[in-house]
Amino acid sequence: MSTPDTLQSIDARTGQPQGDAWAASTPAAIDAAVAAAAAASDTFAATSAADRAGLLRALAEALEARREALVPVADRESGLGPVRLNGELDRTAFQLRGFADVLERGAAHAVVDDPAVAGAPPAGRPRLAKVRVPVGPVAMFSASNFPFAFSVLGGDTASALAAGCPVVVKGHPAHPELSRQTARLAQEVAAARGLPAGVFQFVEGGSVATGVQLVQAPAIAAVAFTGSFKGGTALARVAADRPRPIPFYGELGSVNPLLALPAALEAQGAALAETLAGSICLGSGQFCTSPGVIVVRKDASGDAFVQTLAEKLQALAPHAMLSAGIRANFDRGVSAWRAHGKLKPLVSDTAAAGATPRPFLAEVQAGDFIADHALHEEVFGSAALVVRVGSIDETLAVLRAIGGSLTVTLWGADADTAEHRALVRAATQVAGRVLFSGVPTGVAVTSAQHHGGPFPASTAPFTTSVGYAALNRFLRPVALQDAPQWLVERQGVPC
Amino acid sequence: MSTPDTLQSIDARTGQPQGDAWAASTPAAIDAAVAAAAAASDTFAATSAADRAGLLRALAEALEARREALVPVADRESGLGPVRLNGELDRTAFQLRGFADVLERGAAHAVVDDPAVAGAPPAGRPRLAKVRVPVGPVAMFSASNFPFAFSVLGGDTASALAAGCPVVVKGHPAHPELSRQTARLAQEVAAARGLPAGVFQFVEGGSVATGVQLVQAPAIAAVAFTGSFKGGTALARVAADRPRPIPFYGELGSVNPLLALPAALEAQGAALAETLAGSICLGSGQFCTSPGVIVVRKDASGDAFVQTLAEKLQALAPHAMLSAGIRANFDRGVSAWRAHGKLKPLVSDTAAAGATPRPFLAEVQAGDFIADHALHEEVFGSAALVVRVGSIDETLAVLRAIGGSLTVTLWGADADTAEHRALVRAATQVAGRVLFSGVPTGVAVTSAQHHGGPFPASTAPFTTSVGYAALNRFLRPVALQDAPQWLVERQGVPC
Repeated sequence: MSTPDTLQSIDARTGQPQGDAWAASTPAAIDAAVAAAAAASDTFAATSAADRAGLLRALAEALEARREALVPVADRESGLGPVRLNGELDRTAFQLRGFADVLERGAAHAVVDDPAVAGAPPAGRPRLAKVRVPVGPVAMFSASNFPFAFSVLGGDTASALAAGCPVVVKGHPAHPELSRQTARLAQEVAAARGLPAGVFQFVEGGSVATGVQLVQAPAIAAVAFTGSFKGGTALARVAADRPRPIPFYGELGSVNPLLALPAALEAQGAALAETLAGSICLGSGQFCTSPGVIVVRKDASGDAFVQTLAEKLQALAPHAMLSAGIRANFDRGVSAWRAHGKLKPLVSDTAAAGATPRPFLAEVQAGDFIADHALHEEVFGSAALVVRVGSIDETLAVLRAIGGSLTVTLWGADADTAEHRALVRAATQVAGRVLFSGVPTGVAVTSAQHHGGPFPASTAPFTTSVGYAALNRFLRPVALQDAPQWLVERQGVPC
Repeated sequence: MSTPDTLQSIDARTGQPQGDAWAASTPAAIDAAVAAAAAASDTFAATSAADRAGLLRALAEALEARREALVPVADRESGLGPVRLNGELDRTAFQLRGFADVLERGAAHAVVDDPAVAGAPPAGRPRLAKVRVPVGPVAMFSASNFPFAFSVLGGDTASALAAGCPVVVKGHPAHPELSRQTARLAQEVAAARGLPAGVFQFVEGGSVATGVQLVQAPAIAAVAFTGSFKGGTALARVAADRPRPIPFYGELGSVNPLLALPAALEAQGAALAETLAGSICLGSGQFCTSPGVIVVRKDASGDAFVQTLAEKLQALAPHAMLSAGIRANFDRGVSAWRAHGKLKPLVSDTAAAGATPRPFLAEVQAGDFIADHALHEEVFGSAALVVRVGSIDETLAVLRAIGGSLTVTLWGADADTAEHRALVRAATQVAGRVLFSGVPTGVAVTSAQHHGGPFPASTAPFTTSVGYAALNRFLRPVALQDAPQWLVERQGVPC
């Protein structure tokens, strides 16, 4: 196993080490990585949108070209399976190219150009052209659960590079060999395109000190983080406590409440139960959008739905989890739920020693759920709570108790009624994405996506880590007053 | 004088109290104000953009209608003079109507609507419509130096109301009577339009506890603040340390470096010196955009410019400052500069006891300026430092030492040369607005404005407190997946 000072590739399915361990990045190496990124910052900021689009397309191509080498490493280190990992690699390449498209359309660097107006203020004014400039070197913390799409060349890296910001990527110690190989690929592509090495820097190490050093480095201008509530809020505080605070874009955990209204359950409860069971078990439940709280009315259609959901879930077999640490956390969370006096377990097998995890489902009454803050916390993995409610008001109270989530799903709220309006209002107050059909796992990469919700789902809920708006996190507006035309044409970034 | 627990209207010119003191808002009254705002939040969020535009226009009209009553109170409490204050009231009405225009154009609530794409991910996707929902009740901290435009009905209030967020305004204790009268006007307008009283709430008090209570109130969803570095960073920390952190939009002080390049000085140095002297003294230097650092080459045109600037400044007579506290801070700052071993005073009269302040100007060599962090801090009032530089590199180092500013002004950088590009690059890294002519005082209210720069100028440099983009601070994106059409048409906010 990796220690804070060493990295070790581990077979996720067997727990066995693969090859030798190696040393984490030293403090001096981290400093050097940040210094290289800072030194490359002006040069990279001054590249054209077309140049950066070319870099992103070249990265996508290189990733696809190295698929046969990378997917087996990812599979061994994550246990996620080749089907999922090939799909995830496709998605990663898709989003690299998607950001390239955005750059080529000129959308990222549109100028808001207000002509001068003659006369005295307030109506009279000089010419003002608002541009957006790259914020500077971005520290990027990879996630464990998407070895491609939220890791070394994932959305955070793609959006930062698209914006013209060098990245210092911290690889995730749960897939250290894949991280190294992906980083090497990125460095080769950047070098082949004549870019300074500082544009893409890579550090590795599992210690708290590594992360803190990166966030505290004076030249780092912003942080992108996907990970746990505990790690994310701790690093967010480090970012806020710097002499010069910087934006911390932290995408943390989420319980993703799903509200199954009677209308939906009466129409197609059995089919929905099966879909939902699949979503709970997808990727062994290791998604930030995995549905963890299912809100169901105390009525006959609700009873039937919960029973079917339990049966379908019982029949599923989640695969091995990403790491021994994540598995231990899952087991701890499920044990606490199993022992909780107010929970009625519905699916609660104990896995045999050394076996893959079993899904867990328990039922709780709304009042008990609302009263116990511990029940609002995510258990990362294939585990969910069914919260039984007696009324819309109680449903609203459950949403309010959860407070912040990446998603809320509303099944059966299509009609424009007063009750549905109240639910929609509460859902938009709690979530960054509200679904009216389907399941929250699966996050489309598009302009209208918003992946980030009120705290604790995100530390920056006005921003998104998925979709093309992700690059807004790294472009700071600047108003140019009476600027020379050549500068406005260069969108405020002189070459 | 106001104490932490009482408010007292003071004549800024004489220092004499006007009428009786009154008690600050009690903790219970602050709680009640927040509760009223929270109770009005859903109702106000569900009003149409046209309704909110109507409210903003009615506020503008009421402000203008009450001009004869309000301006004398503002003048007595601030000492800013009727010309400036009438202009400021015009600007405040202009920006209320400007936000109404934005709402009527539909620009604030544009929906990013991505149609469904058939097929498997990553290209296949559900329909996603990104809307923006009001974030909830906003706590607004008025500034002392703009009794209309950054106070009770200023840009922060206008933009929050435009976004559909109730406001809890904390009046500034330096103009307590004007604040009360303006708040009463706002409450009457809201009531006349049938809006719940919670839409506009007003609290008053100068104690730290009042501000902290407001920022910590669980129902407050965002804070808008204009004021000092010390107060702003302290409250920003309170906002970050809440169990549920909230955005803190703090617009703090700024030294607004102005770079006077030889080309500009050779062409029109004398005229520019006169313009700059006027800017340094405008409003007795009590602007967040007042130029505090003038960077001048060590050459003949620079010597002549500095001499003329000193002469012009010497001839000016700043008016009384906003309050005894602000005056005491100015005197303290100037005394420290006067006693500083590395500064050569150029304009350094001491004001007679009880007299209005005298402007202050001193010269310092770039190396000494860069080395002493205390010299990078703003002295709020008509005081500036001339920093003499020997090269572009030294100019760049001065900018880097300052680090963050609302504005940087570049005189004589119009031509597209390597040196100018380097200066522009540094200026856009340091500032939220870069001017190529004129002076930084005077901030146009328009879409392309950006008032907010890297820390310490702002705690949220991606946002602006002036101009129509200010309402982006209060609208949180939400992606609606497979939403019913009625909801997309209502822009995600059901009535």
